[in-house]
Amino acid sequence: MNFSSQLLEDAVNEFAKLPGVGQKTALRLVLHLLGKEQEEVSHFGKTLIRLKEEIKHCNICHNISDHHTCSICTAVKREKEVICVVEDTRDVMAIENTNQFFGVYHVLGGLISPMDGIGPSDLFIDSLVQRVATTPVKEIILALSANMEGDTTLFYLHKRLKDFQVPITTIARGIAFGGELEYADEITLGRSILTRIPYEGSFIK
Amino acid sequence: MNFSSQLLEDAVNEFAKLPGVGQKTALRLVLHLLGKEQEEVSHFGKTLIRLKEEIKHCNICHNISDHHTCSICTAVKREKEVICVVEDTRDVMAIENTNQFFGVYHVLGGLISPMDGIGPSDLFIDSLVQRVATTPVKEIILALSANMEGDTTLFYLHKRLKDFQVPITTIARGIAFGGELEYADEITLGRSILTRIPYEGSFIK
Repeated sequence: MNFSSQLLEDAVNEFAKLPGVGQKTALRLVLHLLGKEQEEVSHFGKTLIRLKEEIKHCNICHNISDHHTCSICTAVKREKEVICVVEDTRDVMAIENTNQFFGVYHVLGGLISPMDGIGPSDLFIDSLVQRVATTPVKEIILALSANMEGDTTLFYLHKRLKDFQVPITTIARGIAFGGELEYADEITLGRSILTRIPYEGSFIK
Repeated sequence: MNFSSQLLEDAVNEFAKLPGVGQKTALRLVLHLLGKEQEEVSHFGKTLIRLKEEIKHCNICHNISDHHTCSICTAVKREKEVICVVEDTRDVMAIENTNQFFGVYHVLGGLISPMDGIGPSDLFIDSLVQRVATTPVKEIILALSANMEGDTTLFYLHKRLKDFQVPITTIARGIAFGGELEYADEITLGRSILTRIPYEGSFIK
């Protein structure tokens, strides 16, 4: 593209580095910002600079946090003995939105993926093992994505954690609410039959 | 969404203000930036701040520029007597990319749109009239979008400029290259028949 201004070109190139943003979209975003007040645009810029400079990762669960220990790990109401292991901070947000989980988290920071060169040592797995070894834990819930990398990580975590005599569970896989049987794939449907539960069983103790 | 960090939430909110970017996309972009080096992210932020602080609009054609007068208006090779009137800087870039135009531009900064409350006084129309009145002009090319606002603006510009005895042209409307007749809409096809040109006529003087 022929830019009439170097400043414009620089800003477009910065936006175009973002995932899923091409040169045309980037130009549209930059021209949108140019139509805003100076105050607003410089607030945007400063927010980005502060974001990276000041953000921390919780020293217990590795979730993104404003403090050294995150608000979930410090909350007195949360069950510290139930640890939900997730891939990243988006999963924490998704589970928090359900209002169904009152334990604490452990964010791995990714999944084992030999294809992308991500091995166990690149993730916060040692710190999870350390945490299980040194603090009282009643249950470890492995809430990982249902794909190749998730299954690999699940398998590896189980191998590392099984000697601690702590119950290890995974989230249920099956037909989603609102899902129709005929459109479900064979693997999901097959596993949901194999792992069937008593009717209303989840509400009976 | 339940954010684990205020800094994260602020950054997501800033991105979510951009057109076409929702909260989920904004979160994806912010987490992408968090995975980058501090240097890179603060460069992004500073580029945005500089963009709005330092960018100028050319005092002749109103195009976005790094200087008081843009590089097209100052270029000795451009025909200053042929003015192409466009809506915004994107149109200048699009026409420059064709390498078919060697005159100069006049950026209106929008189109007349009573629905959006944009009238002639909100655009750089007076400065165009002024420019035609005070400098020698051989031709005015109106290169505006082929929609209601474009046609309204075209009509208004013609009314303001017709007394100057300067030839006013508009860009050709018709079937795009690679376009198939059967899929063309009736208005485009109808106008392209009415405004038909001699075969290879565009190459014969």
